[in-house]
Amino acid sequence: MSRRYLEDLKPGEVQTFGSATLTVEAIKAFAAKFDPQPFHLDETAAKASLFQGLAASGWHTAALTMQMLVCDMPGKLALLASPGFDELRWLKPVRPGDQLHVRCTCLDVSPSRSHPERGHARFKIETFNQADECVMHYISLTLIARRPTASG
Amino acid sequence: MSRRYLEDLKPGEVQTFGSATLTVEAIKAFAAKFDPQPFHLDETAAKASLFQGLAASGWHTAALTMQMLVCDMPGKLALLASPGFDELRWLKPVRPGDQLHVRCTCLDVSPSRSHPERGHARFKIETFNQADECVMHYISLTLIARRPTASG
Repeated sequence: MSRRYLEDLKPGEVQTFGSATLTVEAIKAFAAKFDPQPFHLDETAAKASLFQGLAASGWHTAALTMQMLVCDMPGKLALLASPGFDELRWLKPVRPGDQLHVRCTCLDVSPSRSHPERGHARFKIETFNQADECVMHYISLTLIARRPTASG
Repeated sequence: MSRRYLEDLKPGEVQTFGSATLTVEAIKAFAAKFDPQPFHLDETAAKASLFQGLAASGWHTAALTMQMLVCDMPGKLALLASPGFDELRWLKPVRPGDQLHVRCTCLDVSPSRSHPERGHARFKIETFNQADECVMHYISLTLIARRPTASG
């Protein structure tokens, strides 16, 4: 299967995939650029914080999850764009050395009324660490291409 | 004012601040690492896509918005952690050369019942380009420290 179009998506279908490891260096480099808060940058400050130790920026976890969705999902999704997401929750700190993977559940699929060549799909995205603890989840809204017809 | 605690936040208060410029190189570097889809990496592929030209990954826009929230917000917020976000929407493509800024509106504030030293605040975060078009908005959930008392 080369590409997965709207017609190939089945509500309830679950895919589990991906692998991303967080190093101290990567956590600090991302935080320095995008989220320079003490608990993402400095071990001592992090120890005294609510996180009780160095933790990755939640946006770093979200960006790595996107990387796994694009690169590691079995069957390349014919994704046109994403209007956004709902109900993102960071549930547990992501630590140096943590190895993440993703579970993607198709929630619903609907052809567009105004654009016959595409449709909408919602997915529940869950990111887990190596202990199978869910560290983040959200609902992703997507625009997906429909399978091109022979007639054009 | 050195730090802004829960007591300093007023529902309805609006702050506008920050400046972040997107270059072609930064857009492609972020996308290569976290969101390697053709419309974020290659001008020709982007031209043929729904974006009709190179566009930054939405996660890049979100990460830069976080950077402005941490670095440029007037008065340093006593932020302890963020449980997550609701209703994130990417409204318009962010292009090379775009200059972004942020508008942050305090929606509501409530002391924690179980933890007297902190409380919850929700903010509407809106990111604008140089033409004052909103490119992204979301609702941010935060845990904020209460002002330390002399007795404790």
